[in-house]
Amino acid sequence: MKKEKLNFAIDTLGKCTVPSPISLSKEEDDYIANYVTDDQHILYDIAVTGNKQSLSLDKQRLLERAGPREHIYFDPAKARAAIVTCGGLCPGLNDVIRSLVMCLWYRYGVKWIYGIKYGYRGFLPEFSFPCMQLTPEIVVDIHRQGGTILGSSRGYGDRTEDIVDALERMNINILFTIGGDGTQRGACAITEEAQKRNFKLSVVGIPKTIDNDLSFIQKSFGFETAVSSAVGVVSGAHVEARDAVNGVGIVKVMGRESGFIAAHTALAMNDVNYVLIPEVPFDLQGENGLLKHLEQRLCDRHHAVILVAEGAGQNLLKKNNEVDASGNKKLGDIGLFLKDAITKHLKSKNIDSTIRYIDPSYIIRSAPANPNDSLYCARLGANAVHAAMAGKTGMLISLIHNRFVHIPIGPAVSRKNRVDPEESLWRDVVEATGQPVLMKNG
Amino acid sequence: MKKEKLNFAIDTLGKCTVPSPISLSKEEDDYIANYVTDDQHILYDIAVTGNKQSLSLDKQRLLERAGPREHIYFDPAKARAAIVTCGGLCPGLNDVIRSLVMCLWYRYGVKWIYGIKYGYRGFLPEFSFPCMQLTPEIVVDIHRQGGTILGSSRGYGDRTEDIVDALERMNINILFTIGGDGTQRGACAITEEAQKRNFKLSVVGIPKTIDNDLSFIQKSFGFETAVSSAVGVVSGAHVEARDAVNGVGIVKVMGRESGFIAAHTALAMNDVNYVLIPEVPFDLQGENGLLKHLEQRLCDRHHAVILVAEGAGQNLLKKNNEVDASGNKKLGDIGLFLKDAITKHLKSKNIDSTIRYIDPSYIIRSAPANPNDSLYCARLGANAVHAAMAGKTGMLISLIHNRFVHIPIGPAVSRKNRVDPEESLWRDVVEATGQPVLMKNG
Amino acid sequence: MKKEKLNFAIDTLGKCTVPSPISLSKEEDDYIANYVTDDQHILYDIAVTGNKQSLSLDKQRLLERAGPREHIYFDPAKARAAIVTCGGLCPGLNDVIRSLVMCLWYRYGVKWIYGIKYGYRGFLPEFSFPCMQLTPEIVVDIHRQGGTILGSSRGYGDRTEDIVDALERMNINILFTIGGDGTQRGACAITEEAQKRNFKLSVVGIPKTIDNDLSFIQKSFGFETAVSSAVGVVSGAHVEARDAVNGVGIVKVMGRESGFIAAHTALAMNDVNYVLIPEVPFDLQGENGLLKHLEQRLCDRHHAVILVAEGAGQNLLKKNNEVDASGNKKLGDIGLFLKDAITKHLKSKNIDSTIRYIDPSYIIRSAPANPNDSLYCARLGANAVHAAMAGKTGMLISLIHNRFVHIPIGPAVSRKNRVDPEESLWRDVVEATGQPVLMKNG
Amino acid sequence: MKKEKLNFAIDTLGKCTVPSPISLSKEEDDYIANYVTDDQHILYDIAVTGNKQSLSLDKQRLLERAGPREHIYFDPAKARAAIVTCGGLCPGLNDVIRSLVMCLWYRYGVKWIYGIKYGYRGFLPEFSFPCMQLTPEIVVDIHRQGGTILGSSRGYGDRTEDIVDALERMNINILFTIGGDGTQRGACAITEEAQKRNFKLSVVGIPKTIDNDLSFIQKSFGFETAVSSAVGVVSGAHVEARDAVNGVGIVKVMGRESGFIAAHTALAMNDVNYVLIPEVPFDLQGENGLLKHLEQRLCDRHHAVILVAEGAGQNLLKKNNEVDASGNKKLGDIGLFLKDAITKHLKSKNIDSTIRYIDPSYIIRSAPANPNDSLYCARLGANAVHAAMAGKTGMLISLIHNRFVHIPIGPAVSRKNRVDPEESLWRDVVEATGQPVLMKNG
Repeated sequence: MKKEKLNFAIDTLGKCTVPSPISLSKEEDDYIANYVTDDQHILYDIAVTGNKQSLSLDKQRLLERAGPREHIYFDPAKARAAIVTCGGLCPGLNDVIRSLVMCLWYRYGVKWIYGIKYGYRGFLPEFSFPCMQLTPEIVVDIHRQGGTILGSSRGYGDRTEDIVDALERMNINILFTIGGDGTQRGACAITEEAQKRNFKLSVVGIPKTIDNDLSFIQKSFGFETAVSSAVGVVSGAHVEARDAVNGVGIVKVMGRESGFIAAHTALAMNDVNYVLIPEVPFDLQGENGLLKHLEQRLCDRHHAVILVAEGAGQNLLKKNNEVDASGNKKLGDIGLFLKDAITKHLKSKNIDSTIRYIDPSYIIRSAPANPNDSLYCARLGANAVHAAMAGKTGMLISLIHNRFVHIPIGPAVSRKNRVDPEESLWRDVVEATGQPVLMKNG
Repeated sequence: MKKEKLNFAIDTLGKCTVPSPISLSKEEDDYIANYVTDDQHILYDIAVTGNKQSLSLDKQRLLERAGPREHIYFDPAKARAAIVTCGGLCPGLNDVIRSLVMCLWYRYGVKWIYGIKYGYRGFLPEFSFPCMQLTPEIVVDIHRQGGTILGSSRGYGDRTEDIVDALERMNINILFTIGGDGTQRGACAITEEAQKRNFKLSVVGIPKTIDNDLSFIQKSFGFETAVSSAVGVVSGAHVEARDAVNGVGIVKVMGRESGFIAAHTALAMNDVNYVLIPEVPFDLQGENGLLKHLEQRLCDRHHAVILVAEGAGQNLLKKNNEVDASGNKKLGDIGLFLKDAITKHLKSKNIDSTIRYIDPSYIIRSAPANPNDSLYCARLGANAVHAAMAGKTGMLISLIHNRFVHIPIGPAVSRKNRVDPEESLWRDVVEATGQPVLMKNG
Repeated sequence: MKKEKLNFAIDTLGKCTVPSPISLSKEEDDYIANYVTDDQHILYDIAVTGNKQSLSLDKQRLLERAGPREHIYFDPAKARAAIVTCGGLCPGLNDVIRSLVMCLWYRYGVKWIYGIKYGYRGFLPEFSFPCMQLTPEIVVDIHRQGGTILGSSRGYGDRTEDIVDALERMNINILFTIGGDGTQRGACAITEEAQKRNFKLSVVGIPKTIDNDLSFIQKSFGFETAVSSAVGVVSGAHVEARDAVNGVGIVKVMGRESGFIAAHTALAMNDVNYVLIPEVPFDLQGENGLLKHLEQRLCDRHHAVILVAEGAGQNLLKKNNEVDASGNKKLGDIGLFLKDAITKHLKSKNIDSTIRYIDPSYIIRSAPANPNDSLYCARLGANAVHAAMAGKTGMLISLIHNRFVHIPIGPAVSRKNRVDPEESLWRDVVEATGQPVLMKNG
Repeated sequence: MKKEKLNFAIDTLGKCTVPSPISLSKEEDDYIANYVTDDQHILYDIAVTGNKQSLSLDKQRLLERAGPREHIYFDPAKARAAIVTCGGLCPGLNDVIRSLVMCLWYRYGVKWIYGIKYGYRGFLPEFSFPCMQLTPEIVVDIHRQGGTILGSSRGYGDRTEDIVDALERMNINILFTIGGDGTQRGACAITEEAQKRNFKLSVVGIPKTIDNDLSFIQKSFGFETAVSSAVGVVSGAHVEARDAVNGVGIVKVMGRESGFIAAHTALAMNDVNYVLIPEVPFDLQGENGLLKHLEQRLCDRHHAVILVAEGAGQNLLKKNNEVDASGNKKLGDIGLFLKDAITKHLKSKNIDSTIRYIDPSYIIRSAPANPNDSLYCARLGANAVHAAMAGKTGMLISLIHNRFVHIPIGPAVSRKNRVDPEESLWRDVVEATGQPVLMKNG
């Protein structure tokens, strides 16, 4: 992958002059954490090949470290924050909301916190959704449940002016946008519109993508919980396949453009025989095609499990130009397509078989976060609050090399994160499943 | 923490002349992973503070990347491998064993794989434990259960000569040591003894420590599963405390020298009020002591949950110079000590209370790995096999900045990994629990 | 319900003259269980209304108690048993197989135990499936996994003569049939054919029906596990519905003719608003129809969850005369039908809504049994073995009023067990959900 | 067991003249449940041995069926209810509270519902605990958490007059007592005191005992959840034992006088080798003693799991005459006793071994109810409300032969429910574990 020329400097609203109400330390070895300063960075690029003697840092991507600053921009007594959750559900949304509210309220003393209902739609007057006033009492137990207490929906991220009008009307200083790349593109536009109006608004995004397809974040929250749920479902498919006459289990998991859920699920258990992801094309027909391989496997082993990411094999399906409310191209149903193609093929070969197709999408999205994701969400939320209170804007909270950092929205939404078929994750998947290259010249 | 002068170069047994039976690629963009070469490294140190212009790489710690090499050292048809698991149980042991066997057998064609019973003890003639011959059929489903099919026990890592004698007798070329720092120190001695004898033995360790206290590994396998189990137990303690008159729940978790399990558990849920870890001293008595704070909390909130790592507050207990079979100092039981001290204190203040003490250690250690740990173990095992087949020795497989790397055993066992009380993890714990500094000058 | 004139006497192959190898007692208070005798029964009918003075027992249904007899029919050294699992998967199949094998082997010393592959099909020469020889070693851990190690399939229960030919060829004395009413009808025919041939075959069925729709068994094994799984899925549907704009979650669960899974699931959680089962007709259109009520609920509460058994509302769907391999009428997909009807209706009323349809069938069927079902399966299996060794035949092992009993197959398959809309289970469902009567004259 | 002469008639406060606000039916086949009438009973005794021709019903125990009556005693607009939870925690407490509140509020329109804090203590002025006013909003989600939102504590059930004084002061008409036999004895005394004062108080108990040791209830709520949790813990003990050199796992579970949890747990999994319960005495020493058998098993199989109910083997421990706040005799710790005795014995025989002792009590008690227990609690609560509204008093809601019935408190607390060593449950445990009779004359 080529290194892009991207600017990783973080915008701020202005000089931080308010002393932080969080009492940390500036000394070492007093058992009290130190404030983070703006000149603390981490290196993004860590690969070193060959005999290089030195790295010139001005050519490297340096990412600003997240954490509480000694001086902040907003006076907590006057600050007003808003939180909005957009797009499809994802485990951990309530954990993030809880953490934002708790940190604003107890650490900084910000008592005006608004929850916007049903995504960006909640800002628009024509829907007249009332917003929720959020307090510790309201959020204290919400992490025990999946979903988002704010509700969510797709779209309307392009109604920038209306949204900024609403924010001005409500006197909001800080906006937390929890959502995927569409949402964060909206957040970017909001940031720019606010700057244009000289409206002192801090916009801090918490990246959410169950597909794990956002760039510059090592793992998105909820992803691990999603993989855990998928593992359970694929186990069921394996049992169904194994215990039927020539049983074939097909499970479709999330992954519009990136096969991370499928790849991780296959590696976390050991019952998948074919993993199909958007990043790796495959043939259905032909000597190296899936159908031929599957037919052979049924002869040898009498059952098979296929795990397919929803965005895989779209070239095999009829074109379709519709888009959904988030502006995503509507995908054909590769799961049903495979089920039909396999049924037809095995029938044509007179192979008696039992084919089960499972699409667990909603079950996976709506689960509460597992402990590791809960912890991650708690820390994402706290660090987002620290950034916002320091007047940072147009940025996302991210985890890179296990450190929390600030990333400008621009680079993060400039491209999707994908499984690299030449790198170690996919290699380990191929080795663990033993799956062949499913292409003519495979 | 000061940067140590440690050598991170990896020893090899000799030149790799055998072509790998794994067919990977050397080209880009052919959808087939490329072989890893010995000159691929990653930077260990990623923090950059201030206005530095460049990094001189010869002063940096560069870690060799793990993965399959194009040429290997051992002829798979003749190679013989042995696997040993040592020390206490930890989720994921069976996953690692499974992955080692599967990769050796199917990827490389190594068919002589021995499982050594009950740790290093299994090498010693006086115990006459027979060793197991391991095949894919035997290991295929073992990851569904906790523990280790090989059995485990502590100690005997200092019987270097006897162990190397046994390895020579068995014609073993490759030894995988799955264990903690004691085990890996033993592995280091075995490596040296083999070199002295000019016995071509590859020793590759897979670091195991449920406490997550090994250096140069970002997270040890099974740690996350342990945290998940601990979360469930602390939830129970919270319910017991909340629903009793002035209920106090005390949970002791693993963590002899490092409070990672306690810190992660507290952050992953939100019911802990005091986290006590070995890295942060605390007072029991006095105005800022735990007892005074707890008393106040019971007046205000009528219940409290204390999560204590087993190694915390050892200065408060009577000295004891015993050691266990692994050579670890026997710790006093801080949980029982706290229970007694709190009971006595509250009685002296005439506060009617209900104190529950829970020590879930064995329940946590013996659980099967959760999906994320399973995946991690699968990849650790595969990469350990790649390293061994390439003749690397005296090293550990590790994950750093989410890349699998080779680490020489020496630096890894030179010091413990600890929670840094001045860094962000502990800071986030303190913020989330709201716990005060529990020291006289707090 | 009218009391049927059914014969509940149990057939036996002949006089039991072999002393049981199980050493129990005939004395009280020696802390050793006593043998069960053939004159121990339980009353089936326990309802007493009004001022009745006495019950005439010859008009009552008396059920023979299960358990080990002092004398048995088969010489364990010579006996040969076969086990077959038929129909769809159900949690607990492997637990039953395990229990049968363990009790035969260790309690009675029967060492010839055959597992028939893929249901009745496994008996038929044209499929030439080899049978498995079952031992304690093979079955010891199978209960940890869902499904059946024997495999299963539908149909072929009417190939009575071929099946009995196969049993004779294999010298089988005891046949355990694990399956639903179709399977047990087949078992009944096998019993009769064997009697006609004077072939001393004991046929003991273990009733399996995930729908809980078999008569004369208070709860079928796996049912409770199925309800647990369904609860998780419906929770997900509830989260999806609650957090979307006018979200509607539709979950379809098993229940071709009986709504037990749906009814129990709705009562076990509290998020279902409408439960639709085959036993209670409902209207879609009209003032009291589902659509009108749903529309009103969305106005009031903005979300709704509908739980529908697969056999509900079949009168609303187009007729279809196909049958599946088990001879069951193919049902129309009421879930998809409801999804379409609701979508169309809400669109016609200009109500912006989000409709999610989930069909978790295979995920539910393939799960391993929960502890309570495991215990139940263990006891069903042991009692089935006791019955078979005593030469009982043409019967099922059942649990009635929490006692294990013998039921002749005839009455058990004479009618389906159904949710009685006038009895307390359905009443409690209606009260808990608050759902209205969804019919014109409701 | 001899049939006791006990009176099973249910007391009522007077004639029911208020039409029920629940609209049920009196007709058959209208798909609407019918009201239950006071002359509907079920037979308790169902065993029939030999050739009896008839049962004289006046010698039988007939139990009144629970359910909504057509006419009720209290005017819902004026009725005031109180709920109290006593004794140790048990899964399902919150489910019962939720169900009581929901049924009172929505089905009957009772809007004054008080939650008494911390058991009977909450009635006593000297503690001045404020009571909670309970509404659907407060209880809607409480079943997701273990414990009781009311808090619980032991004792004070003998402060009858003070409690009735408090009930009169608060104008309570209906008291729901959720607790074990001590609690229900208190409820009995309250009923009598109210009758003496001519205070129209309906007292309806919901029997709670995690040990399942109450008579006249087929299974107490939370018991099944407790068994599920115990299964997980014993699995861990099994792994620890199996994977250590001569590992012995000892798990102590609840069961002061009845070994139901231990017996069910052992049957639900298959890893227990010795089950020790209060009902079956055992020897430690001697040829048939536990120690000898264990020693032999370690020689043969190298590991063992012992599951002991807390009340087992008390004759082996030093006498102790203390009682706890509930008036229960304090038990010696049989688990620690066994651990010490086994350690000493194996050391004396020079057998190298690893002994793990686990006491999971609080983890088990504090879990939320599993789906089957949730459903059961929901129905117990609804039926308790129906009984109370109809003016029944001095009674418990119970499930017998899978029907909900009314039981007078007297018979229910007259003796404990115990595992009958001569009956099928214990027989099946002994067969499944293969454990020998552990007594001198075994």
